[in-house]
Amino acid sequence: MPTLHHLPLSPFCRKVRITLGEKSLPIELREERVWDRRRDFLALNPAGKVPVLEMENNHVLADSQAICEFLEEMVPSPSLLGTTPEARAETRRLIAWFDDKFYREVTQHIYGEKVLRRQTGGGSPDSVALRAGRTNVAHHLNYIAWLCDRRTWLAADHFSLADITAGAHISVLDFLGDIDWDRFEGAKLWYQRIKSRPSFRSLLADRVNGFQPPPHYANLDF
Amino acid sequence: MPTLHHLPLSPFCRKVRITLGEKSLPIELREERVWDRRRDFLALNPAGKVPVLEMENNHVLADSQAICEFLEEMVPSPSLLGTTPEARAETRRLIAWFDDKFYREVTQHIYGEKVLRRQTGGGSPDSVALRAGRTNVAHHLNYIAWLCDRRTWLAADHFSLADITAGAHISVLDFLGDIDWDRFEGAKLWYQRIKSRPSFRSLLADRVNGFQPPPHYANLDF
Repeated sequence: MPTLHHLPLSPFCRKVRITLGEKSLPIELREERVWDRRRDFLALNPAGKVPVLEMENNHVLADSQAICEFLEEMVPSPSLLGTTPEARAETRRLIAWFDDKFYREVTQHIYGEKVLRRQTGGGSPDSVALRAGRTNVAHHLNYIAWLCDRRTWLAADHFSLADITAGAHISVLDFLGDIDWDRFEGAKLWYQRIKSRPSFRSLLADRVNGFQPPPHYANLDF
Repeated sequence: MPTLHHLPLSPFCRKVRITLGEKSLPIELREERVWDRRRDFLALNPAGKVPVLEMENNHVLADSQAICEFLEEMVPSPSLLGTTPEARAETRRLIAWFDDKFYREVTQHIYGEKVLRRQTGGGSPDSVALRAGRTNVAHHLNYIAWLCDRRTWLAADHFSLADITAGAHISVLDFLGDIDWDRFEGAKLWYQRIKSRPSFRSLLADRVNGFQPPPHYANLDF
């Protein structure tokens, strides 16, 4: 079975785990405390980051988008990118929206301050960064609702890697109790659909030392 | 002819321009001062960023990687990603290395401080950030040399989007005079090969108000 070197609360690792689930590919998870900078791990990925996918033939892949594109090529059905070049471009635009823009404006501030800083011994979260992340998230959740008013899912009328990517980032914030769902009805309806997918189940079972997710985290009807 | 909304010194726009050149696709360039947040531009790309590619049929694409993947699908030859899933994964790993890791550790500090800050009226560059960028670049240039000791080009024995992406970022630093090439012989040999490609020519002719590239910038034998 292939191995995914990961961190349970990394949105980029969660994106790959959901994709593996959607493609019905079993995986062995191995937690990698990247801040230890283990020599053997750096030999697998000199960028020193997770996710890293190690295939049974020892082929190694790094970077969440490179891994997901590879999985899409190897297991084309169900298609998670779309069936035309234009559809794939729209899916990839939204993947970049969440992996880049959402990460910089939201995830980095909240996950970075609450989880990474603590795990790496960096002390208490910076309250200014936390507040910025919580303010910025509104714009993105409203954008999700706006897209879902026009399409069944974020990039198209079918579920795609755009939903997976957005769901991965948002699931981390939800684990940390940082989304006030009552204020974002449209995004909540979309996230309820995401959460109920079988590929999401292993994420909802994640437990991380030192963190207690809110009671609604694993609840499909929150 | 399609239109590329761009900024001449944005590494992400340069990546798309080089790709268009490699695919022999003519393009009309339109400069977009993204910080003005023009309403018509935000309607094209709500992320408010360049590059944005507007096709003749009015189809709009945003995000440099989504655009380059689209161009690769529409014009498969010459292939810029590789011919096997594994080769494409390696190319995409290195694209992410430069668009993400290199951008955060180097380009953002130098281009962000010297160009973006000035263009948006943010005052003088932060010398601490500049110094960090100049220190961090060494690690990346040594990695380029290391890869080129093992392969003809960064991702494989053929020129790819990994070379384009790395070349795009490095060309911006070179325009700003921030690479001491004498210290990085291996990376310099690779960059000389990049610079001599016809697809690079329009970048070497770029002039930007308020910036004077060093004499070696457009010189192929620097």
